Amino acid sequence: MPHLVILYSGNLDAIVDMPALCRDAADAMLAVRDEAGAQVFPTGGTRVLAYPAPHFALADGGVAGRAVGSGKTGISSPDPGEYAFMYANLRMARGRSAATQQAAGQAITAALRARLDPLMATRHIGLTVQVDEGPEVFDAKHSTLHPLFKKP
Amino acid sequence: MPHLVILYSGNLDAIVDMPALCRDAADAMLAVRDEAGAQVFPTGGTRVLAYPAPHFALADGGVAGRAVGSGKTGISSPDPGEYAFMYANLRMARGRSAATQQAAGQAITAALRARLDPLMATRHIGLTVQVDEGPEVFDAKHSTLHPLFKKP
Amino acid sequence: MPHLVILYSGNLDAIVDMPALCRDAADAMLAVRDEAGAQVFPTGGTRVLAYPAPHFALADGGVAGRAVGSGKTGISSPDPGEYAFMYANLRMARGRSAATQQAAGQAITAALRARLDPLMATRHIGLTVQVDEGPEVFDAKHSTLHPLFKKP
Repeated sequence: MPHLVILYSGNLDAIVDMPALCRDAADAMLAVRDEAGAQVFPTGGTRVLAYPAPHFALADGGVAGRAVGSGKTGISSPDPGEYAFMYANLRMARGRSAATQQAAGQAITAALRARLDPLMATRHIGLTVQVDEGPEVFDAKHSTLHPLFKKP
Repeated sequence: MPHLVILYSGNLDAIVDMPALCRDAADAMLAVRDEAGAQVFPTGGTRVLAYPAPHFALADGGVAGRAVGSGKTGISSPDPGEYAFMYANLRMARGRSAATQQAAGQAITAALRARLDPLMATRHIGLTVQVDEGPEVFDAKHSTLHPLFKKP
Repeated sequence: MPHLVILYSGNLDAIVDMPALCRDAADAMLAVRDEAGAQVFPTGGTRVLAYPAPHFALADGGVAGRAVGSGKTGISSPDPGEYAFMYANLRMARGRSAATQQAAGQAITAALRARLDPLMATRHIGLTVQVDEGPEVFDAKHSTLHPLFKKP
């Protein structure tokens, strides 16, 4: 924990540098601090995984976008009926304060928007970011990655 | 929101028109009405993402299917030991009535069954549809897709 | 139900036999027994789906791994800055005892560790296994796979 899983319509791969977006999101998570100024997410446990969906259906499938066309809305993408969507879900451990949860969500949102806003200006793209508290009833971790970041 | 995420064994890609199935599911979601007759899911926020799993293991891996063979069960697929599975999970916002939640689940199930039932008749396929109320503690949306569907 | 979904950094595909790992996990699930000695997960409903993430960001991206290098930690992978991660999430039905939930989680963890531990000895890899009780508000199943395993 924490795990940020990004699900998105596969057509974004052609216009978004996804490895860089993942790195930005991870860096944003690592920079989150709690009310006492302590790092919230342990470095060795911070993970971002992004999955392009090869198959998807969004909204009305492009009808409204094509009907409105490019001119009226500032949308200048080659096909105004081609919609795209990104959903980012952070699962974090239970017990964090509401302020810390909001800070984490806002940090991730800011990182993703920094990459997507320029594209959104000319394309029909939706972004949703949600944070869940893990409801797990069993939790096991085993790692040779975590120890790299343990204080001696 | 809402997000319908479909996870399935990758062997279905060869026999199911997944882009069409996604579109059918989205259309089914868009047609859901609440008790007052209002559209439940906003058009611009309706998303279906489908992910074939390149690696999977189902049930006993095919032993029972091959043992029974094709003759006794009406299964006429080339390999009766080749199982397939689809799992559809709808995450919808909190606060909807139980009747609306059921209607949403039933609409999606019907859409998926319309595509899968003919295949199920001759193959060993399992389908599960579940609806969750999103438990998010943080929620942010940003979109140039939603505004396309705003009433003027 | 139950569904085991495995999300992992795509770089593991080169070093882990994922089809075999999925099968091992399914077999481990099928072997779980409750306090009365009964099989917990129905054979026809046991599913494992594994998804390599084509894009990901882990921890500090490799800085610490490369700084420490191979010599000091026993890490002998070609690139000590190449981290990997696997997250396994089991969603099981509500109403099982805590002991059964723990047994399921431990069985899956053991199966995954049997495949990953040898790799972890020489690489920076993290594994997390979590079990959730499904919070679904709607649940529908349709299957021509389940009946294969029904007692006559």
